Amino acid sequence: MNLDQLGLCRKAITSRSKFNRVVRRCHKEGSHEGPCDEFPFLEHLESIAGRVAQKVKRDSVMTTGAAWKSEEAGPNRILRWVMLETDEDLRAYGIDMTKLKPQVVAKLREKAAGYDDCIEVSMWLTYLVYQMAGAPAAPSSTSDFLARVFGPMRTATTLCEVCRLPLAFEMFEGAQRGRAIIETCHREPRQHSAGNVGFAHRECNIAQGARSVDEFYAWIRGILDRVGR
Amino acid sequence: MNLDQLGLCRKAITSRSKFNRVVRRCHKEGSHEGPCDEFPFLEHLESIAGRVAQKVKRDSVMTTGAAWKSEEAGPNRILRWVMLETDEDLRAYGIDMTKLKPQVVAKLREKAAGYDDCIEVSMWLTYLVYQMAGAPAAPSSTSDFLARVFGPMRTATTLCEVCRLPLAFEMFEGAQRGRAIIETCHREPRQHSAGNVGFAHRECNIAQGARSVDEFYAWIRGILDRVGR
Repeated sequence: MNLDQLGLCRKAITSRSKFNRVVRRCHKEGSHEGPCDEFPFLEHLESIAGRVAQKVKRDSVMTTGAAWKSEEAGPNRILRWVMLETDEDLRAYGIDMTKLKPQVVAKLREKAAGYDDCIEVSMWLTYLVYQMAGAPAAPSSTSDFLARVFGPMRTATTLCEVCRLPLAFEMFEGAQRGRAIIETCHREPRQHSAGNVGFAHRECNIAQGARSVDEFYAWIRGILDRVGR
Repeated sequence: MNLDQLGLCRKAITSRSKFNRVVRRCHKEGSHEGPCDEFPFLEHLESIAGRVAQKVKRDSVMTTGAAWKSEEAGPNRILRWVMLETDEDLRAYGIDMTKLKPQVVAKLREKAAGYDDCIEVSMWLTYLVYQMAGAPAAPSSTSDFLARVFGPMRTATTLCEVCRLPLAFEMFEGAQRGRAIIETCHREPRQHSAGNVGFAHRECNIAQGARSVDEFYAWIRGILDRVGR
């Protein structure tokens, strides 16, 4: 997908972040009135289910890392495109990759993704959210846009990327011990793009581990062959 | 199994622990000379692979809990049989269960096990270790004892309880980032007894999650049915 071919505004949005080498852009329609907005397709969700909208933005744009904050874990929840920069450029932001363990560096670097890929992922995850069982109906401005980009929306068709059971919108609320029941999931762990990202049950995402979804299926097929079906 | 019927010494071992309501005992042969020993069947392993022997003892006898230490997580790595005591008796040890979240209490209580069950598990895990591929040979005093309790030992027959692939003794050494590749695993999570405990790859143990092994197999069978083999 090329975001420049969608007829969107794409004007630069001024940022106060220190990570400003990459320009963030407006994704309203090209002809829009009023102020620019990076995530207009999330505006409705933001107003009725703010935490879900925030999760979509965060998981699209930020790396995940260790669940804890520590010097050793390195920068946690950093913009994915910042992790595309060289060690030298990162030092200018106060991030010294040479002080981190090789495994931590590898983990951070494998979450790197370009800005447009992240925006595309945020559109795709929004599209999937609205197609969950029990999801609110999107206003036509939002559903028309998403359908134009990804095809017609169908109610209650969003499945867990791993176990292929339907996901319900209400699962976003069923957080236990601060842990969401639904997580963002990568079919191929090292690829942050719309086609490769989706939602999964937390337990499915954990079971998948560092494997691709296809590797996971091959693995469990092998187990059942040994156990005897 | 009844430990009292194995002809072992079973004399009380004096303990300086504050958790002394349960008497720990000697498990040398009844006719033994020299000092008593709670884990004589681990003596050889202790001398050649101390960390493996320590792991067997620890996993047999102690609860696991949160990976971190905090007030909220409650007592971590506590003797399993202490978790059989009442809230009131625990208060005498300085453990106030009423101050912990219900889920934390449930997690601690489900790891509870009687002293004899824990000792039996330690014998069983030792038996499994010696039957891993590449494991050192046990001295006859140890192998005779274990064979008498559990049956003849066969080389390289210990499998991962989840994926049913052979486990190699050297996997105990292959710890990455402080995490062992082999973990102790419960086929039925809430039951700490010899027949129900074994070893599993760390990733298999994680994938099993809170399910029993049989529930795990049923779950992955369902996935493959939906994905289409």
